Amino acid sequence: MVATQGSDVASEFDAATAVARVRGASMFTGEVDAGWTVGDKPNGGYLLAMIARACGEALASAGSSHRDPVAATAHYLHAPDVGPVELVCEVLRVGRGASQVRCVLRQGGRGCVDATLTLGTLAPAGSAPTWTARDVVDVAPFDRCVRIPAVREGAPFVVSIMDRSDLRLDPAVLGFARGEPSGEANLRGWIAFADGRPADPLGLLFFCDALPPATFELVRTGWVPTLSLTVYVRARPAPGPLRITQSAHAIDDGRVDETCEVWDSTGRLVAQATQLAAIRVPDGAL
Amino acid sequence: MVATQGSDVASEFDAATAVARVRGASMFTGEVDAGWTVGDKPNGGYLLAMIARACGEALASAGSSHRDPVAATAHYLHAPDVGPVELVCEVLRVGRGASQVRCVLRQGGRGCVDATLTLGTLAPAGSAPTWTARDVVDVAPFDRCVRIPAVREGAPFVVSIMDRSDLRLDPAVLGFARGEPSGEANLRGWIAFADGRPADPLGLLFFCDALPPATFELVRTGWVPTLSLTVYVRARPAPGPLRITQSAHAIDDGRVDETCEVWDSTGRLVAQATQLAAIRVPDGAL
Repeated sequence: MVATQGSDVASEFDAATAVARVRGASMFTGEVDAGWTVGDKPNGGYLLAMIARACGEALASAGSSHRDPVAATAHYLHAPDVGPVELVCEVLRVGRGASQVRCVLRQGGRGCVDATLTLGTLAPAGSAPTWTARDVVDVAPFDRCVRIPAVREGAPFVVSIMDRSDLRLDPAVLGFARGEPSGEANLRGWIAFADGRPADPLGLLFFCDALPPATFELVRTGWVPTLSLTVYVRARPAPGPLRITQSAHAIDDGRVDETCEVWDSTGRLVAQATQLAAIRVPDGAL
Repeated sequence: MVATQGSDVASEFDAATAVARVRGASMFTGEVDAGWTVGDKPNGGYLLAMIARACGEALASAGSSHRDPVAATAHYLHAPDVGPVELVCEVLRVGRGASQVRCVLRQGGRGCVDATLTLGTLAPAGSAPTWTARDVVDVAPFDRCVRIPAVREGAPFVVSIMDRSDLRLDPAVLGFARGEPSGEANLRGWIAFADGRPADPLGLLFFCDALPPATFELVRTGWVPTLSLTVYVRARPAPGPLRITQSAHAIDDGRVDETCEVWDSTGRLVAQATQLAAIRVPDGAL
């Protein structure tokens, strides 16, 4: 297995996203882990993090030191099962400030995720952003927020990613859990790895797809499968739990958009994401 | 040339985004037109529209009727020059409701744009969205907004896309043009094709990258080259000029994000886009 990046501790995330080079400079194997799923399907952000590791390794072979995902987009074609996958990388461009890599995650010869990433080297945590119009989101204190469990009474399946992440939602956005959705598709809370692994740019790829659908506060549906996910990592996060928000803006033609923003413990905006997902709204429910 | 989609009129946009099949089912040629540039570099949304046409043709060869871009992401590797380009498509998946295609736009053997698109068939204009939290943006009436010219006194280059699109910005966001930027990175206005071609899903790909940088209202810089652009087309637009906004949220580590939203004349949200671009802010300017 390729050495872990960005962490000195053996972690669940590092183990579950590990990739091993199998051929030449650009083909890797990985293992979709049963601990990173929603029902029996792997989480899209988790798969994107595995892909980003493969892309970083492919760049190393191309003589580039770029390892941090800066802009990453994945289109999800088929949800892979838990088990072995292949990751086929193609280095598109090696630049001074940033490099681009495409990666296809396959299983049983079938393309499951098609991703293109721009990677670079983010400044050390603690530097100051040049400018921002996004104040850190106002969230109830960490201890007053409610941890989202992997297993919920009456839920049709286990959301195993909730045992890997420590996600605590603001009580004000938990109407859905009481069967009293607020009618506003905005979630906010805190997130960290459950095993204490520090957040880093790779971890942000996962966090940006780790919340329940923001539409849970709007209408009772199943989880919404991601069609396409784009994450911009803006800065290396400082230590500590991250503030996170997720909002949906429109449901149209069976699809919903969701944006996600993440701030570190110093109040710096460290990641922004947007996704388009499929949603089935029961007739008359909205 | 492949027949024009979505329009009965010969238009500048249709001509400039036309692609011709050259080999098999998946390779096309196109011509980067001098009329769709910022300085001497083609606009990123224009290139994405040309790519979307090639992807639709590749899907036709694969037996799919999907032509409307639904989710499109491009990573820009090298800006091509005005002149001939090759577009190499790979159909990733043909589905019932949506299909995915990857396309590389090349020039002189060099990959310039690497894009992945989900295409589908959007409902006819006039249907109602299921739900939206985004009210149509409040913009000054069309006739009170100010058309942005291709040639501006003192500007270092011609922005030829402003002769192709009829972009009118709200006078309230034109401080930058008077040398009095407002300090808020939000632009809003109206947009249409200058030659009267109706807006359609392909046109939205261009419009979502056609505004000046929202940071013009914040700091005096050059135009900001797009690194990665993602557009979600949410609905087929009704006839008439479109309301459009563009906002930046953070400048960090030499990069800025910008989001763009577009509403049609009925007030329906028809497109959402986000991009990450490179920006050079002079020391002390912010």
